[in-house]
Amino acid sequence: MTGVHGRDWRPRYLQLAEELRAKIMSGELAPGTLMPSETELADTSGLSRTSVRNAIRQLREWGLVRAEQGRGTYVRAPRQRVRRRNTERYQWEKDRVLLDEAERLKTGAIEHDTGLTVDDLKFHAEYTRVDADEEMAAALQVEPGTPLLRRVYWTSSRHENPPLTLSYSYLPYDLVAANPDLLDESKEPWPGGTQHQLHTLGIELDRIDDVVRARPPSPDEAELLDIDPGVSVLTVRKTSVDTTGRVVEVADAVMPGDRTELVYSHKLQRWKT
Amino acid sequence: MTGVHGRDWRPRYLQLAEELRAKIMSGELAPGTLMPSETELADTSGLSRTSVRNAIRQLREWGLVRAEQGRGTYVRAPRQRVRRRNTERYQWEKDRVLLDEAERLKTGAIEHDTGLTVDDLKFHAEYTRVDADEEMAAALQVEPGTPLLRRVYWTSSRHENPPLTLSYSYLPYDLVAANPDLLDESKEPWPGGTQHQLHTLGIELDRIDDVVRARPPSPDEAELLDIDPGVSVLTVRKTSVDTTGRVVEVADAVMPGDRTELVYSHKLQRWKT
Repeated sequence: MTGVHGRDWRPRYLQLAEELRAKIMSGELAPGTLMPSETELADTSGLSRTSVRNAIRQLREWGLVRAEQGRGTYVRAPRQRVRRRNTERYQWEKDRVLLDEAERLKTGAIEHDTGLTVDDLKFHAEYTRVDADEEMAAALQVEPGTPLLRRVYWTSSRHENPPLTLSYSYLPYDLVAANPDLLDESKEPWPGGTQHQLHTLGIELDRIDDVVRARPPSPDEAELLDIDPGVSVLTVRKTSVDTTGRVVEVADAVMPGDRTELVYSHKLQRWKT
Repeated sequence: MTGVHGRDWRPRYLQLAEELRAKIMSGELAPGTLMPSETELADTSGLSRTSVRNAIRQLREWGLVRAEQGRGTYVRAPRQRVRRRNTERYQWEKDRVLLDEAERLKTGAIEHDTGLTVDDLKFHAEYTRVDADEEMAAALQVEPGTPLLRRVYWTSSRHENPPLTLSYSYLPYDLVAANPDLLDESKEPWPGGTQHQLHTLGIELDRIDDVVRARPPSPDEAELLDIDPGVSVLTVRKTSVDTTGRVVEVADAVMPGDRTELVYSHKLQRWKT
């Protein structure tokens, strides 16, 4: 891209935003740099103030710049990106369950998604016992009020504080209580993860369904994930069904939209020839 | 849910938002109704004005209410919801290609997702010839500047104007030009869709990859989709690869986050016993 072309089919503000993104990505505009003012950008690009403002808003939504009250807009340090390939991930997690512990200890699902190693990651888990509200009872196919184990996880890169993902997992409490180790948050991160934890209860998964949605972050989420309230979040509700057809876990993941992508691959059957 | 419980683990504003949602869903608060004021809601719920404001913001993000400048907040008419099950959809589309035209005419992919029939839908297609920019060239594995056929689609329910989805499809122009019918937008909606169009060129798909992201809408998208700028959009970049390993189509879909969910199912292989 060289300059804002009239022949380009994209809106002009987006062409400008993409030029600025290229400069940030190449390091020409380094982290910590004060961005040029709206007036300067309007002068150099020949675009209206409105288009320039929309371009800056776009950069904020991409998580590339941050507006600081009364001080201007700064280039942000690049954030750890996550590309989560759930199509392969779930079978990969299942295959790892039967490995010995030394193997399972080596790597977990987040490392799989980010290319980071165990030593690069900080991991936090918090367990509580709650009663199922109507919505979660329906999702888990239990009666409202049924005791649940609620597990909150967040994992971050050692090089930046905000988590890469927030995850809220729910399992029927009585199901899990058969193995008291599974009620103890200090055992986390559990080598082999949830599928291995379920295996200790004699449970094998048959199917995992993801329901993906997009929404703005709640005020708490924006703070926890350290994102601009103008950045969207991707949410995945993951429902795990065992080989007897029973729902054994429902987990909600919340991921910052400025640096997460979910990849789902579909291999198609050949036409008979 | 009856009342805002201290024991509930969700933030209070969300509990209030969910109570109000239940009233809207049940019809107790009908479309067109003026919502109670912040003061009234703070009085009846016992929550702070900040929590009440967050609850109303939440309802706007869910697309359930709309703020009208200087007039207050109104309950919206419920919008057509879309649950897109791409895991089954792509193989279903492929299987339909070999059916005769009468069968293919009966139903298309959007009907599959919404439960609406052909008569309930309005369909719009617009074809142009463009040159590949660097990003699209990389996605299609062609040289920048290669001529592309760009197809813009939007489909809406007859009962509401705003589209359920915006879709931007790109194919190498020379590939498609072998069948001049494929350059003619008046042939849309094409019975059997893109997979059938490709079939007329002797192309069979082997794989479709979806990359899912979340972001705020651009100003144009918010207007076209008739969503509050505070509603997020889900985007899917769909890459179709044929049986020779060539990328034959890249399509970007933009869907309103307040009424769209994407479902991906993963059947797992059994452990050998």
